Amino acid sequence: MGYFRENIEKMEGYSPGEQPQGQQYIKLNTNENPYPPSPKVIKAINKEANTSLRLYPSPMADPLRRKAAEVYGVKEETILAGNGADDLLSIAVRSFVSTGDLVVLPDPTYTLYDTLVSIQEGKVLKISLTENFDIPEEIVKTEAKLTFLANPNSPSGILTPIKRITGFLKELEGVLIVDEAYVDFAEESALPLIDDYPNLVVLRTFSKSFSLAGMRIGLAFANRELIEGMAKVKDSYNLNRLSITAATAALDDISWMEENVRRVKKTRENLSLSLTRLGFKICSSQSNFVLARTPGINLKGIYQELKRKGILVRYFDTPRLRDAVRITVGTDDEIARLLEELSDIL
Amino acid sequence: MGYFRENIEKMEGYSPGEQPQGQQYIKLNTNENPYPPSPKVIKAINKEANTSLRLYPSPMADPLRRKAAEVYGVKEETILAGNGADDLLSIAVRSFVSTGDLVVLPDPTYTLYDTLVSIQEGKVLKISLTENFDIPEEIVKTEAKLTFLANPNSPSGILTPIKRITGFLKELEGVLIVDEAYVDFAEESALPLIDDYPNLVVLRTFSKSFSLAGMRIGLAFANRELIEGMAKVKDSYNLNRLSITAATAALDDISWMEENVRRVKKTRENLSLSLTRLGFKICSSQSNFVLARTPGINLKGIYQELKRKGILVRYFDTPRLRDAVRITVGTDDEIARLLEELSDIL
Repeated sequence: MGYFRENIEKMEGYSPGEQPQGQQYIKLNTNENPYPPSPKVIKAINKEANTSLRLYPSPMADPLRRKAAEVYGVKEETILAGNGADDLLSIAVRSFVSTGDLVVLPDPTYTLYDTLVSIQEGKVLKISLTENFDIPEEIVKTEAKLTFLANPNSPSGILTPIKRITGFLKELEGVLIVDEAYVDFAEESALPLIDDYPNLVVLRTFSKSFSLAGMRIGLAFANRELIEGMAKVKDSYNLNRLSITAATAALDDISWMEENVRRVKKTRENLSLSLTRLGFKICSSQSNFVLARTPGINLKGIYQELKRKGILVRYFDTPRLRDAVRITVGTDDEIARLLEELSDIL
Repeated sequence: MGYFRENIEKMEGYSPGEQPQGQQYIKLNTNENPYPPSPKVIKAINKEANTSLRLYPSPMADPLRRKAAEVYGVKEETILAGNGADDLLSIAVRSFVSTGDLVVLPDPTYTLYDTLVSIQEGKVLKISLTENFDIPEEIVKTEAKLTFLANPNSPSGILTPIKRITGFLKELEGVLIVDEAYVDFAEESALPLIDDYPNLVVLRTFSKSFSLAGMRIGLAFANRELIEGMAKVKDSYNLNRLSITAATAALDDISWMEENVRRVKKTRENLSLSLTRLGFKICSSQSNFVLARTPGINLKGIYQELKRKGILVRYFDTPRLRDAVRITVGTDDEIARLLEELSDIL
C-alpha cells in the first residue's frame, strides 16, 4: 500500500468485545449495566430531539459541565467532556505523548491504552501485575511521560487504594491517568486528589453505572491547565446535543444510578460466592464484573461452550489470561442461568 | 507546565465559529441549515431512545453503512462513519501523517486541517489560492503524504470541477482528501472516483444539507484498503446509537434534504445578486454560504455592527480574508433582514 504510516500499517487495531446487534445472547462480555437508564434521561432526549438538531452543540458541552461541577463538587474548569471515555483517552495520549515517549501500563489492563500509544508511536512499557493482580510499586519507578491506571482495574476488578495512588502521585513526574470507569461500583475514588496533584487526570464514563454505553459519554477531571491543554486536542464539537442532554439528565437523577449500582453489587457478591463454590479462583471485585480463574487451565472451551448456549462472557487469548473468563454482573436471572450452564459444563 | 508535548503547549487550538447557545441571534456564521431535519429523523430518534441505550452501539455503525451503501450506490466496505466529518479528518491525519511528514493545504481553506496537522507534528505547506480563489495547479506538484481539498472550498464556496480533481489524482502519489461537506449544494461530486483511485478519500457530513449539525455525523468513502486502515485508528464506538439512527433515517428521507437544498440555493442566488448590488465582490458559490468581499477594505467593523444588531456572520482576521465576510444562506426572512441592516450600515 504505502499510504499508511508504518505503525498503522503494522498494527492490529483494538478489538472490542463482541457486540451482536440482535438480542439473542445473554450479554455478559462488555460490562454493560443490565438495568435501563433513568426514565428521566429518555424523557430529556425526547424533549431535545427537535428542530434545534440543525444547530451545532455547545463546543465544551457547557450544560453537562455545569451539572457535573455541581454533582461532583468541583469547578467547571476542571472538567472536560468526551465522546465516551475512549475519546478522552485518545485526547490525553495525543496531548502528552510524542513519538518515542515512554508510556507505562500495568499488564494486564484495558487493552485500548496500548493501541492508543501505538497509534501515537509512543514507547510502551508494560509492568506485570503481581501474582494477585495487584499494581506493583515499579509502576512509578520510571521516567514515563504518561502512566495509566485503571482503577478498579480490568479485567481483575481490583481497586488500588487511594492511599497508594497518593503515594504514586508523589513519585511520578509525568501525568497519571486514573481511569475510574468502574468506580461507582467501588469504595473510593481519586477524584478529590485533582486539587493537590497537577499531573493527575481522573476519567469517568456513563457507560457502566449510568447504563448509557449506547450514548458515548465520558468526563475527565483535572486541574484547569491540563483541561485547557487537552481541550485544544479534542474535536471542536465532540459530544452531540443528545449526549449532552442525556448525561445532564442522568446526573440530575443520581439516585437511579445508585439504586442500580446497589443491585449490581448484591448480585456480584452472590456471583463471586457461587463461582468460588464451583471451584473458580476469584479476584475480589469492586466493579460490575468478576474475573473467574482456573490457574493453569485454558478456559477457551468454556467460553465457547457458553457462547453456544447463548451466553457471552469475555475471554482474552493472552498467556496471563487464558485461564480466566471475565463475567459481567447481569441481572439475578441472567446470573442464575449462567451458573446453571457453568455447572452443567464443568 | 512541562506535561504537554511542545507542539500542543505552543499551539492556539482551533476556534470554531461563535455558538451562542441561546436563540437571540440570526445565526449566519457557521453554515448550519436554516430548515429543520426531516420529521422522520425525530421520530426515529424518539423510537430508539429506549432501554437499549444501556448497550454499546454497533462499532462500525452497520445500519448506517448499509443504508449509505444503498443510497450512494457503493459497497458497504468503502464507507467509514465518523462522529462528524471532523472525527474522520482527525482519523485520516493520524492514519497517514507521521512526525515531519509533508501535508499540503490550499490557503485559505477550512482552518481545522492546519490544526489537526499541527497536533500530529506534520509539516504544513500552504499553497495560496489564485486571485480568484481558485486552486492552483501547484497543489499537486509536491511530495505530500496527504493533500486536502475542500470542495466546494470554504470560505469561498467555489467548486473545483471534478475533471480537474481527476487530473490531480493522476499526479498525486500521496492521499487526497476531498472534503465534500457542502457538495449537496453543488453541481458535481468526486464520489464516483473512489473506485478508480486508491488514494482518494471523499468526506461527507450531515451537518449542512441534512440539517443535523447537532448530531455529529460524517461519512468517509474510499477503497476498502483505506477504510480498513482508518478503522484501526478510530475510537471503537465513535458514533452513538442515536447518531446512527438519525443518519440512517435522514438517508431514508433524502427528498426532504433535497427540498431544503433547493430552497437554500434559490435564496443563495438572491443573496448573491443583492450583495453585488450593494457593491460587494462575490465568489460564485456552490455551497450554502457566500463570501462577500470589498477588496482592500477591512470588514471587521461591519461584522461587529451586524453582531450588535443581532446578526452573526463569519469574519476571519487574516490578511487574505480581512476584506471579506462569509454569510450563511439563511431563510428568506433572515436574509432580507441581513440585507436591510447591511444597506443601513453601508
